[in-house]
Amino acid sequence: MNMGRLYGVGLGPGDPELVTVKAVRVIESAAVVAFFAKTGRQGNARTIADRWIPAKARELPLNYPVTTEIPVSDPAYNEMLRAFYQEATEKLAAELAAGNDVALLAEGDPLFYGSFMHLYIRLRERFPVTIVPGVTGMAGCWAAAGETMTWGDDVMTILPGTLPLETLADRLKRTDAAVIMKVGKNFAKVRQALRDSGHYERAIYVERGTMSGEKIVKLSDKADDSAPYFAIVLVSGQGRRP
Amino acid sequence: MNMGRLYGVGLGPGDPELVTVKAVRVIESAAVVAFFAKTGRQGNARTIADRWIPAKARELPLNYPVTTEIPVSDPAYNEMLRAFYQEATEKLAAELAAGNDVALLAEGDPLFYGSFMHLYIRLRERFPVTIVPGVTGMAGCWAAAGETMTWGDDVMTILPGTLPLETLADRLKRTDAAVIMKVGKNFAKVRQALRDSGHYERAIYVERGTMSGEKIVKLSDKADDSAPYFAIVLVSGQGRRP
Ligand SMILES: C[S@@+](CC[C@H](N)C(=O)[O-])C[C@H]1O[C@@H](n2cnc3c(N)ncnc32)[C@H](O)[C@@H]1O
Ligand SMILES: C[S@@+](CC[C@H](N)C(=O)[O-])C[C@H]1O[C@@H](n2cnc3c(N)ncnc32)[C@H](O)[C@@H]1O
Repeated sequence: MNMGRLYGVGLGPGDPELVTVKAVRVIESAAVVAFFAKTGRQGNARTIADRWIPAKARELPLNYPVTTEIPVSDPAYNEMLRAFYQEATEKLAAELAAGNDVALLAEGDPLFYGSFMHLYIRLRERFPVTIVPGVTGMAGCWAAAGETMTWGDDVMTILPGTLPLETLADRLKRTDAAVIMKVGKNFAKVRQALRDSGHYERAIYVERGTMSGEKIVKLSDKADDSAPYFAIVLVSGQGRRP
Repeated sequence: MNMGRLYGVGLGPGDPELVTVKAVRVIESAAVVAFFAKTGRQGNARTIADRWIPAKARELPLNYPVTTEIPVSDPAYNEMLRAFYQEATEKLAAELAAGNDVALLAEGDPLFYGSFMHLYIRLRERFPVTIVPGVTGMAGCWAAAGETMTWGDDVMTILPGTLPLETLADRLKRTDAAVIMKVGKNFAKVRQALRDSGHYERAIYVERGTMSGEKIVKLSDKADDSAPYFAIVLVSGQGRRP
């Protein structure tokens, strides 16, 4: 019997129309559609893909363990996640070994941050894999904001907001354009880093880019320091333009 | 009479199936499909979009002036490009003023390097504009190579290969993951910068990612120093992974 193929399917930033034609084809033809979700929730990936999942598909939700009680720095946190990824890997491996193609949904692009990669590195030596790249969340956000991000010789730096303030400010000083991901709980620190680096006045804040509830505002016009998970900060480059 | 709308349509890295559903819809419904091309050539954007352009669409090629005789540093080069963008702007403005929607094709994503932005900044105050983000060339390349680019707190830096050797090496030293664009004529310098920064052994070279003639090889395994326009170098991040 032939093994099934694992597809890592990028879904784009949120608008279901920003899924690629290839992603639609793969989702429509896979025997199993798998996705990450918090227990009891549908999950954002499943929501984006909703209209593309055919009735005949078997759905395989991979439910994250509840980790809210454990600090991220505690080794127990890492251990719990590791066990979860291991268990999810075996669920997918059973399907693939049985000859079923599995489409594993990924928000944005599958190989740019995100959970897909944790299963991918565990499965890629055992089964054939195809990666379907997607429009990244950041590209959806800068399109929604109409920001021209990079010109000519501009350098762009992508920074997780989880980094320490000093690292953020230092990296921001040495770049022309920047994207700060994972802003959420790090919002106040991100704002300070942008002030320290001199990019504050050019920074744009985008919440839920291309999704319902989208919000776009100059960072300096945002009064409060609260931000949801789907929030990003953009600093556009100012390079050569004839 | 109503004005037409300008659509900046990202086409993705090269595989026509990596166009988004939204891009297909916009291309199919626009009165005019415009694209950049070298005189006498179809142009890569037009080639990617080929199967999506309906027979009824009016095509508007924007032919780059021949600049091969003039060095890029010569002010005449800049002047020639400026005149070309100005002229192309007026061609599109005439269509938009006449009430025709125009889909202007862009390789990869429209707001990430690339020519689309030069017309966009000249037209956006005069006409309504919608940006359709696309899968970037780099995301197509890292999917084709199966490279897991960024994990956890990884910083990613995107560098044009046109930068000086010292700048390239310095920026590479201060990042976890990197993408070097515009490798083409800068190949030997890019290789040296990766050697100087210590990332050489991890670097992957991708030529024509997701297009016909795709080539993927470890940079250290590439014997010669020649590379075409569609060539990129990827350095993957090695961050936290439970
Ligand atoms: C774990 S990363 C996943 C990135 C994803 N793989 C991609 O390619 O965009 C999640 C972060 O991406 C950013 N993000 C992704 N989509 C977004 C959207 N539609 N609006 C705002 N931020 C978004 C947020 O900063 C969020 O914290
Ligand atoms: C002017 S930039 C345009 C970038 C485009 N707007 C995007 O989003 O990818 C052109 C450079 O992108 C890179 N590139 C784009 N598509 C590529 C592909 N399919 N394979 C290899 N390199 C590519 C090359 O480095 C090339 O020199």
